[in-house]
Amino acid sequence: MSAPSSTSSAAGSWNPASPRRRVERALLEGLQRILARSRVRLVLWDGTVLAGSGGTSATVVVHDLRTLLGILWDPELHFGDAFSDGRLQVEGDLLSFLESSFGTWRDAPLDALGRAARYVGRRFGDRIASRRDVHHHYDLGNDFYRLWLDEGMVYTCAYFRSPGDSLEDAQVAKMDHVCRKLRLRPGETVIEAGCGWGALALHMARHYGVRVRAFNISREQIRHARERACAEGLQGRVEFVDADFRSIQGTADAFVSVGMLEHVGLANYRALGDVIDRCLHPQHGRGLLHFIGRNRMRPLSAWIRRRVFPGAYPPTLAQVAERVLEPRDLSILDVENLRVHYAATLAHWRRRFDSAASRVAAMFDERFVRTWRLYLAGSEAAFSTGYLQLFQVTFGRSRDNGAPWTRAELYEP
Amino acid sequence: MSAPSSTSSAAGSWNPASPRRRVERALLEGLQRILARSRVRLVLWDGTVLAGSGGTSATVVVHDLRTLLGILWDPELHFGDAFSDGRLQVEGDLLSFLESSFGTWRDAPLDALGRAARYVGRRFGDRIASRRDVHHHYDLGNDFYRLWLDEGMVYTCAYFRSPGDSLEDAQVAKMDHVCRKLRLRPGETVIEAGCGWGALALHMARHYGVRVRAFNISREQIRHARERACAEGLQGRVEFVDADFRSIQGTADAFVSVGMLEHVGLANYRALGDVIDRCLHPQHGRGLLHFIGRNRMRPLSAWIRRRVFPGAYPPTLAQVAERVLEPRDLSILDVENLRVHYAATLAHWRRRFDSAASRVAAMFDERFVRTWRLYLAGSEAAFSTGYLQLFQVTFGRSRDNGAPWTRAELYEP
Repeated sequence: MSAPSSTSSAAGSWNPASPRRRVERALLEGLQRILARSRVRLVLWDGTVLAGSGGTSATVVVHDLRTLLGILWDPELHFGDAFSDGRLQVEGDLLSFLESSFGTWRDAPLDALGRAARYVGRRFGDRIASRRDVHHHYDLGNDFYRLWLDEGMVYTCAYFRSPGDSLEDAQVAKMDHVCRKLRLRPGETVIEAGCGWGALALHMARHYGVRVRAFNISREQIRHARERACAEGLQGRVEFVDADFRSIQGTADAFVSVGMLEHVGLANYRALGDVIDRCLHPQHGRGLLHFIGRNRMRPLSAWIRRRVFPGAYPPTLAQVAERVLEPRDLSILDVENLRVHYAATLAHWRRRFDSAASRVAAMFDERFVRTWRLYLAGSEAAFSTGYLQLFQVTFGRSRDNGAPWTRAELYEP
Repeated sequence: MSAPSSTSSAAGSWNPASPRRRVERALLEGLQRILARSRVRLVLWDGTVLAGSGGTSATVVVHDLRTLLGILWDPELHFGDAFSDGRLQVEGDLLSFLESSFGTWRDAPLDALGRAARYVGRRFGDRIASRRDVHHHYDLGNDFYRLWLDEGMVYTCAYFRSPGDSLEDAQVAKMDHVCRKLRLRPGETVIEAGCGWGALALHMARHYGVRVRAFNISREQIRHARERACAEGLQGRVEFVDADFRSIQGTADAFVSVGMLEHVGLANYRALGDVIDRCLHPQHGRGLLHFIGRNRMRPLSAWIRRRVFPGAYPPTLAQVAERVLEPRDLSILDVENLRVHYAATLAHWRRRFDSAASRVAAMFDERFVRTWRLYLAGSEAAFSTGYLQLFQVTFGRSRDNGAPWTRAELYEP
């Protein structure tokens, strides 16, 4: 992980006249072939410039041979690490560059990886690993997240009634959209699995008159959520429980989980279905799962999985339907894909993050800033190019015909 | 298939004093155990009455021992056949009786049947079998269907903006709902797979200004549809093609299939996905699949499959997502479960069918009337109890972000 300046001179080995010339030439030709399909300009440490034929949307400056070889060997992982380390730079618009990269990579034969993804899901999700994985990401400090999330500290996809809505409005609209889909009525009870900093639980209690038991395994988040409940005088109506979703006991009229499923792991989907079935009112119980998903089975980017979200796996809709809901005979009533809303949410977060970059660097370091910049831009590109989806799935008991005849009332003012 | 009167005297073998008494007693005890969970009263040919403890919703009169044994051996198939033959009668409300029956049967351990259902799907769906199967049901004569369908001859689930809507209004509303979900614009092209008597194709051309190529393998339906296109002056904008969906060629802005998928067979889902992918515009192409589905994998009732809808298989949402859409990287944008709308549609059809029963009997015979009465009531019960679902799945190209930000405009007047 040497700094760029120290390695760029060591790159003198990149000499067309050296004995390794044949290997180098093959490498250059390979690179040129890859770049031919892209709009990327590549600048190497010795000044060599390689470019695609379709115009340039971004310039990638690579500081040493090792970095270049690493990226060729395992693009997802090594590009991310090199970006974090500062061993390469992207000049130009990072988002456009990443969006066009998704276009290049996705054409590769990924079916075998897709099959492998079934097994990846199994490696994660036992309770100790879940706590460790969640701690890695969500316990970075509430002060850090406060720098760039909305006031309510909602770290999931917002819902923009109109593209120009503010992030604050869109997060409130998302919570209302979820509550309307759940048809919450005053006096009812709700179980929430994976409650973040508590915004949705508090919103449901305050605006829909329900009582909520909300579960989370991030200690930092639970602590913050309890403080908010006390400050807002809602501690009698919202209980925040520091426990894994598998520990959920009791029954409720509604079950909701926003942004947890992608951290649960395929091997635990059946257990989640069992929990939902056990908790939900046997006649009128209904539920909502909001999660990052995929069109096709694929592993998550190796870099995201290792450096940002250990244990994460975005499932296909079929996997959730088949493994969580089907074994318990739950009826899928409504599915909405909010992918473009997540791209918009991430655009807001990125702008706020960039504005707060110097404060983030003071909290952590420049490497952390670069890592998160790539993570946020990469996620935005993934949603804007359809590489990731955001599914909201509403479900109910199979014999329950209590849902409204149409979805029109979701859209009444 | 003897008439009830001739067999009821042969039932003298049902004698508590005979040497077969032990077997008979075991049979009676078994029946009593089954009935204990139901609200059915059973009257046997010799006057024996068996009843559950929970009050009576219907009385089933069984006319002979063979019929009773047949029902115990394979309830789904033999109950239906005996009902068609008149070897048993249901006194009281047929729908309530069937609804409560779904409640009893579904608690049985059906997982093994569910697994078997994967294979059932494979046995059907080659092109010759498809033509034969479709002919069996849809070529009963347009005059027959005209007796009890709406004016537009739409033989799929309607969409009731309000439960009191007429069937005519609800079928038009369904077609509009589909067109709005597809975001049809004047001048665009649409491919329809499985077009029935052509109502949707003509509706799209007339009200949305699109050009339609509509495919069907029912000759009776195609003939009728072409006549309508001529009568309405739409023959230049709607082409009805007598061909299997696998023969579909050309490209279109939208792909739609309403009520075909349940006749396609699991083994052909991938081929359907290939056809959709081949036809749909590579950038903005979008599609809609409207089909009868299931919460869980199970075979369709043996009686329905053998006597009413040969080759039919209602899939789970997961099966359609995984086999049709996932291999082609198509994004699921919206899923709506219209199960209660199908129950309401069937209630309309049943009322109209009952009113036309004497004319149906004159066209066919009383046995046919009984068969269809059971089929329509059984289907209504299946939807009202959540044993069957009706899914409308809207999908698009994975990179296409052209869908509106929210679904609100589907619900604008």
